[in-house]
Amino acid sequence: MIYVVGIGPGKKELMTFEAVNALNESEVIVGYKTYIDLIKEFIKDKEVVQNGMRGEIQRCKDAIKKAKEGKKVAVISSGDSGIYGMAGLILELITKENLDIEIKIVPGVTASIGAAAVLGAPIMHDFCHISLSDLLTPWDVIQKRLKLAAEADFVICLYNPRSKGRKDHLQKAFEIIGEFKSGDIPVGIVKNVGREGEFKQIVKFKDIDFETVDMTTIVIIGNKSTYVYEDKMITPRGYVL
Amino acid sequence: MIYVVGIGPGKKELMTFEAVNALNESEVIVGYKTYIDLIKEFIKDKEVVQNGMRGEIQRCKDAIKKAKEGKKVAVISSGDSGIYGMAGLILELITKENLDIEIKIVPGVTASIGAAAVLGAPIMHDFCHISLSDLLTPWDVIQKRLKLAAEADFVICLYNPRSKGRKDHLQKAFEIIGEFKSGDIPVGIVKNVGREGEFKQIVKFKDIDFETVDMTTIVIIGNKSTYVYEDKMITPRGYVL
Repeated sequence: MIYVVGIGPGKKELMTFEAVNALNESEVIVGYKTYIDLIKEFIKDKEVVQNGMRGEIQRCKDAIKKAKEGKKVAVISSGDSGIYGMAGLILELITKENLDIEIKIVPGVTASIGAAAVLGAPIMHDFCHISLSDLLTPWDVIQKRLKLAAEADFVICLYNPRSKGRKDHLQKAFEIIGEFKSGDIPVGIVKNVGREGEFKQIVKFKDIDFETVDMTTIVIIGNKSTYVYEDKMITPRGYVL
Repeated sequence: MIYVVGIGPGKKELMTFEAVNALNESEVIVGYKTYIDLIKEFIKDKEVVQNGMRGEIQRCKDAIKKAKEGKKVAVISSGDSGIYGMAGLILELITKENLDIEIKIVPGVTASIGAAAVLGAPIMHDFCHISLSDLLTPWDVIQKRLKLAAEADFVICLYNPRSKGRKDHLQKAFEIIGEFKSGDIPVGIVKNVGREGEFKQIVKFKDIDFETVDMTTIVIIGNKSTYVYEDKMITPRGYVL
């Protein structure tokens, strides 16, 4: 039995009851070290298998190995396990090896939803998620999606917006999006949602300082109706008030 | 003080701790009748203000009136309050009337995330949300978004896919999307996520029976890599296994 658990953005209050129940019922907890640290209080006295960044495949293989031994295992993801998380990878491996292991996906609050709540209500209308990481997706596919999403006037949530190895991707993304979106559109930047060091900023599209953005950041770009009131970023749903 | 609370798809286990805390701390609970029924156990002995469909503006006005009286109020949405929920409307009204009321947005698990967990891992790669309701959004805007989202090969989550008054919108949406997506792409249909009568179906794009879809349904259309294994719908993230 493997639970694939989304633990939410970071703080305990944003976990679901089902996520905590799954951790409680599991004998082995498998995860990225940083996320294991976030849920320490729920996994005392349990067997923990953890490793570092880019160790996802090994983590899933470890989890499957433990499950084959008959143990109840929880594989954790931050946010929701089904959004750029571990749910897909576990199911891909199960598929490939044609294994008979029960899998239960436990959903969670993804980073964009957590960030949106901090910013106000920026994703109240049609929106999309685009990851700027080209480790697993060709950059030309990402560019095409950015262009079409901007043309469609979606609110755009950028995941993995900027890392040390990809310093210029965010700027390139803004150049592509800027062909369709006005420079005055609000952009919300939230770092460490629900964690220590949470940081929030709302700027105009044309004024973003890319240096403020790193891998722990979610960037939300409004649509043409999005506005700012005091410290809130709001995308109207279309009601006539 | 107004908490705008996303209660998740329906079952208690998918609520966050923060959502339950906000309900506990509130003196007045405001919501759509169907959603009030879902959280009955948390709001015993509290003042409840509820009304029916399309009563959103009145509900928010009622909540603001109670908050002005000095009461702690929780306005509830199903799923996440910031995704086609009440967060935007509350903030829009606060903005318009320039009111000094503290607002706390409490995020939740939105329907697409809940549905995805039931289906497997269909939204593991870039995806978008599009509501097919043209009550508040011009149909030509919706059509444009459908076309561009399909062209970008996003996984597409359709909210409000079909109602009695909009029986043909879903079929039209499929015609538009079908210009770019293959008829063999998997489509996941989940009704009443996490509620009594939960129903799940995975079909090929070309085989969908529009009659199975209603307003309580989320429709998730895969990208060109999405596949089906047994009863799971999986969109690969791109790992080489």
